[in-house]
Amino acid sequence: MTYYQQHQSDFLEGLKAFLRIPSISTLSEHKPDIRRAAEFAANELRAAGMTSVELIEGTGNPLVYAEWLGAPGKPTILFYGHYDVQPPDPLDEWTTPPFEPTVRDGRLYARGSADDKGQVFCLLKAIAAAGTPRVNFRFLIEGEEEHGSKVLFDLLKREPHRVKADAVLVADMAYFAPGWPAVYSALRGLCYAEITVRTSKTDLHSGEYGGAAPNAHEELCRLLGRLKGPDGKINVPGLYQAVKPPTRAELTSWRRLPFKEKAFLDRQVQARALTGIKKYSVLERLWALPTFEIHGILGGFTGQGAKTVIPAQATAKVSLRLVPNQKMKTVEKQLRAAVKKLAPKYVDATVTFLHGADPAQMKLSNPVFKKLERAFQEVVGRAPVAARAGGSIPIVPALASGGAPVVMTGIGLPDDRLHAPNEKLDLKQLWDGIEVFKRFYELLGT
Amino acid sequence: MTYYQQHQSDFLEGLKAFLRIPSISTLSEHKPDIRRAAEFAANELRAAGMTSVELIEGTGNPLVYAEWLGAPGKPTILFYGHYDVQPPDPLDEWTTPPFEPTVRDGRLYARGSADDKGQVFCLLKAIAAAGTPRVNFRFLIEGEEEHGSKVLFDLLKREPHRVKADAVLVADMAYFAPGWPAVYSALRGLCYAEITVRTSKTDLHSGEYGGAAPNAHEELCRLLGRLKGPDGKINVPGLYQAVKPPTRAELTSWRRLPFKEKAFLDRQVQARALTGIKKYSVLERLWALPTFEIHGILGGFTGQGAKTVIPAQATAKVSLRLVPNQKMKTVEKQLRAAVKKLAPKYVDATVTFLHGADPAQMKLSNPVFKKLERAFQEVVGRAPVAARAGGSIPIVPALASGGAPVVMTGIGLPDDRLHAPNEKLDLKQLWDGIEVFKRFYELLGT
Repeated sequence: MTYYQQHQSDFLEGLKAFLRIPSISTLSEHKPDIRRAAEFAANELRAAGMTSVELIEGTGNPLVYAEWLGAPGKPTILFYGHYDVQPPDPLDEWTTPPFEPTVRDGRLYARGSADDKGQVFCLLKAIAAAGTPRVNFRFLIEGEEEHGSKVLFDLLKREPHRVKADAVLVADMAYFAPGWPAVYSALRGLCYAEITVRTSKTDLHSGEYGGAAPNAHEELCRLLGRLKGPDGKINVPGLYQAVKPPTRAELTSWRRLPFKEKAFLDRQVQARALTGIKKYSVLERLWALPTFEIHGILGGFTGQGAKTVIPAQATAKVSLRLVPNQKMKTVEKQLRAAVKKLAPKYVDATVTFLHGADPAQMKLSNPVFKKLERAFQEVVGRAPVAARAGGSIPIVPALASGGAPVVMTGIGLPDDRLHAPNEKLDLKQLWDGIEVFKRFYELLGT
Repeated sequence: MTYYQQHQSDFLEGLKAFLRIPSISTLSEHKPDIRRAAEFAANELRAAGMTSVELIEGTGNPLVYAEWLGAPGKPTILFYGHYDVQPPDPLDEWTTPPFEPTVRDGRLYARGSADDKGQVFCLLKAIAAAGTPRVNFRFLIEGEEEHGSKVLFDLLKREPHRVKADAVLVADMAYFAPGWPAVYSALRGLCYAEITVRTSKTDLHSGEYGGAAPNAHEELCRLLGRLKGPDGKINVPGLYQAVKPPTRAELTSWRRLPFKEKAFLDRQVQARALTGIKKYSVLERLWALPTFEIHGILGGFTGQGAKTVIPAQATAKVSLRLVPNQKMKTVEKQLRAAVKKLAPKYVDATVTFLHGADPAQMKLSNPVFKKLERAFQEVVGRAPVAARAGGSIPIVPALASGGAPVVMTGIGLPDDRLHAPNEKLDLKQLWDGIEVFKRFYELLGT
């Protein structure tokens, strides 16, 4: 009987309790939930035998720090995870409520189940499973991954010794495909902003002024249409210049991955067609090219019924994903310049930067990757494939800057629906994950 | 001392009480306010000496009907007005709250002050001012002008005798300019709809899928950009075909109106430029051409902060204003066909019709217009100019169909900001209006 089998029911209840806390970092009304989730994580760290467990407060959400340095001469591993989650809307598309964790068909449905509470939980339970540790541990579990990681960035600057380690483990990721664990060599960066268009002093009546007055939504839509063409090309001057293309070796290995465009479309995207720049493969579009997405549009009348207003102001929430070697600060400037250039003169168009992250790239040559390979091979029967990630983890470039190898892996599956309704974690992935990381900790100590 | 001077303070308090009722017909939570406003109007009609005052109920908001037919052999005049108002948002742009009527610099600020409670109030007070009536009255004060006029349409069909009259007075309008009263020869129609675009089964994470998955907001913006070009031309096949151009006489008289493009831009539109089809004059764009406006866009993430979601669905509230001889039903079909044609195949694009009105055109040759001219001339020193209206009053085409002349006039001013924040009514317009309509009633009886 494996370790997890003895504790399965307790573990599931523990994780459910963690998931019940709506620790949404982007909504200020959830501040108390953020604290509850931080305290929950701290208690779990204490239960796993960590010492020096503390909540580091800053101007943002508390960062849970913990360490156990009781294995002198042995390597130190730094864990990174987060307890904050994305907002759950649209709520009516959830089969069961986002903060009432529910198991259906061996899957645990809840906001945060895969991103990232379930994964943090997995790493912690694997420590207890490993028995007396033969490695040293440091933990960073933050509450602002979805919101800029300010407290953690401050800590790295102020007390760099806290994150001194021989390897960094970021287990925030997914398998490449079911049965295919993965380790990631790059993360995309992010530049999230609001584009606001103002056309008149106040809203106007479309009966009185329609036909001769500018309409903020019309101007915004046209501007957004100019920023990205139907061919998928982003019309932000300079944007593609810094992009470092993938190596030939990478491209070859990507072609060997178990990836079928049709299955990706039908089972994951669940749309009628894929979009993007057609001359690149889908994996290149997801991993090696910047993107531009509209997330929502505010302003005007969006209530029930009909109001015939010509809106004076419209705001689009947008973001660009960035790839190696782009710089978030540079892209922010490029976006400002493009908006200024593409908006008509009679329109006030402004860009408000909300948050972002530089992209990250990791070499997979350190021996620690061999140990991860072996752990996965032994437990799930297959070594992880080298992939890239389309998502962003703002702190990773900073964690990588110390020189320690950053091991990015995880127990998610590609259909976990992160940031979307019905986010889930397959319980088999969790139980396997506990065994994988238990074995990885053992191997690190050898 | 004029009649209104003796009663000014009472009248102002009475109107304020009417305006305090948030009778927003497009929001279902205001149903009780709708009823209160209807009852308020009914009481005012009783106070003005009307008999047979009743609330006609249907499937929508109550219609207030009243009549006084005590002057046999004299003409009957049918009044049309409405007690419902537009939603007040954006609330934060109001200097004083929309339902707390406030006088500043001789202007009464409140939602409904000009459109239409203030005008209804004016017509009623003018009856009392006129003393013993020498005309017969019928009143229709509805609660759905901003929402389709269903109850009233039903009444017209079911009991056409109720609206039998020698002239119809629709005093829902504004002066052409300060000091320039107006009478209107046409109203634009309306076709209000929601265009919904669906691109995938659920929202997706822009980190995982950005670059290869369709984005509903992007597709919607592009579709809206295709439906109307930057030159102001609406790309709905067939739309301009039925349009009846203004006569040469109309165009000549419009050129003589006290209209300055720059003043219109600076003082009324308050924008940096006018838009629309450049080869037509501004008045033609406002009065004689169909329009297409976006009122708001729903879907995706519009909350506080940042959520990196690729929206699966986006909905735009849009409307077209229609001009003589367009038909609302035809335009609805043309819009559906255009959306179907312009949306890419991988997008589900649907059009939901919300409400609308046919345009209306009135000949100004009936003797009743001479009497109105004289009343204005005597009271404010200038006869009304013949103009067209850009707005829509759904019921007017039906009221005009009986053959009685429809007199469209009113006491508003062009800067009253109907449907927008800080809607107001100049009190001088109200006091003058009471005298004008008092005189008009007297002249009708001669």
